[in-house]
Amino acid sequence: MEINDFLVAKAEAVNKALDDYLPAEDKKPAKLHQSMRYSTLMGGKRLRPVLTLIVANSLFGVEEERIMPAAAAVELVHNYSLIHDDLPCMDDDDYRRGELANHKVFGDAIAVLSGDALLTYAFELLTKLEGDFTAEQILKVSKEVAQGAGFRGMVGGQAADMLAEGKAVEDIDLEFIHRYKTGALLQAAVRTGAILGGADKEELAALTIYAENIGLSFQIIDDILDIVGDEEKLGKEVGSDEGQDKATFPSVYGLEESRAMAQKKVQAAKEAIERFEEDAELLIQLADYIIERDY
Amino acid sequence: MEINDFLVAKAEAVNKALDDYLPAEDKKPAKLHQSMRYSTLMGGKRLRPVLTLIVANSLFGVEEERIMPAAAAVELVHNYSLIHDDLPCMDDDDYRRGELANHKVFGDAIAVLSGDALLTYAFELLTKLEGDFTAEQILKVSKEVAQGAGFRGMVGGQAADMLAEGKAVEDIDLEFIHRYKTGALLQAAVRTGAILGGADKEELAALTIYAENIGLSFQIIDDILDIVGDEEKLGKEVGSDEGQDKATFPSVYGLEESRAMAQKKVQAAKEAIERFEEDAELLIQLADYIIERDY
Repeated sequence: MEINDFLVAKAEAVNKALDDYLPAEDKKPAKLHQSMRYSTLMGGKRLRPVLTLIVANSLFGVEEERIMPAAAAVELVHNYSLIHDDLPCMDDDDYRRGELANHKVFGDAIAVLSGDALLTYAFELLTKLEGDFTAEQILKVSKEVAQGAGFRGMVGGQAADMLAEGKAVEDIDLEFIHRYKTGALLQAAVRTGAILGGADKEELAALTIYAENIGLSFQIIDDILDIVGDEEKLGKEVGSDEGQDKATFPSVYGLEESRAMAQKKVQAAKEAIERFEEDAELLIQLADYIIERDY
Repeated sequence: MEINDFLVAKAEAVNKALDDYLPAEDKKPAKLHQSMRYSTLMGGKRLRPVLTLIVANSLFGVEEERIMPAAAAVELVHNYSLIHDDLPCMDDDDYRRGELANHKVFGDAIAVLSGDALLTYAFELLTKLEGDFTAEQILKVSKEVAQGAGFRGMVGGQAADMLAEGKAVEDIDLEFIHRYKTGALLQAAVRTGAILGGADKEELAALTIYAENIGLSFQIIDDILDIVGDEEKLGKEVGSDEGQDKATFPSVYGLEESRAMAQKKVQAAKEAIERFEEDAELLIQLADYIIERDY
């Protein structure tokens, strides 16, 4: 599948940039910087920053290297959230991407602090866009990332998820949780690419619908893979959601219905960006990839 | 003491603004928002935002209400750090300002998340300055706050402090810890007021020296009060640093020498801002207040 190779190449470009941007391991306090690098450079699909790059580049012709600080900033926010989510007081996961979770290597205190540092650094990185974009555009992106990551976004979703544990399934607003927990930052990633690309209001609205729909289908597939996925490919134990009594799409709607929901949302995502015609080709392939992936 | 009443009035203005800016308690997920409000509105001296207000207003004539989002943003960063610092895996403090610590009321997971949310919201609040200041100024402030709060600043200092626990006193770089843990954000607070006031390079440099010196003297006095302070006035147990085997100025230099150091730094702070002549009066009184305070 062509898109696969493309995504891997883009993820590598993001990895290289992150490696450049992060503080050196031997800089004092070394353990903090090692911890920041450990989790951030562990790999992953880099879906969010790759979305930022694709939107800016293929729809608006912005060169990859100019937009990279913004793509990296979004990925730092995602990575900080994974470190905090894995903490014993949160999801209590010992592994992430097949490796020991940050807190298992560096201890809980440094894990909390390196998450805090990555989140903070994201907003510093955005200021590196100066010179290539107007200060107004960069501020708009800063607001976008802050809203997508904060209490109206990712943190709000994660809090709702934590508070839902142990509750009866019918009392849980699953769509609320996922719209915020995964969807909000993914949406910020897409909108960041669009804002820096100079998208007009209608283009931004279309891309927002695209992002909302791939965000939800991505989460549904994640939930499905947690049940039927291959542990080796996923790099984590399957069945962990069930063990934690987490509300998931399959636990509420069943596997088949969940799969159909994901399919429908991907379709809606693709329709939303028809206006971009052939320029949208990569985003369409990416949407298909999201439901076809097995890790 | 006149400055005392003045500081109380300014702190009240900051409290009111924070109350306005924070999300409503009944908004979903309610516990997250309650937790954010609980710690932020608990009170405190509001030293950092008050510094932002005084610098911008008394030196550069910026109206308080225009600069308030920036002052509040700095205070949100301070408050998030207190919530995370009190966690069982960090300093493990059950009380803060005489009240139960956030994690004792809301649990560790929500305490982590509300800290994350407050930090993120700080960067959103800065974008509220638009219209009153240029986008370039606001971006400069955003970078200032991110650097002061991040791995090069507050989080770096807190990490160094955690990593120093249990180490022999002679192996601990106390000045590094405090320069970053407390000093960096305080410096960002002062510089934020200066940047938004339109300070030139020399003015910014002078105010940076002022901030560095009051930051260190503030920390030295904090350490001294932890030994000789009045628990009731402080709202926390004294002797908690000693119990945790923390490196402090009195434990390294003794009480008298520490007091002399604080005095010397306040003197240096006052000298640094002589260029502002009578406009600096409030900042000079504030510097004196820092070493005369008993809570």
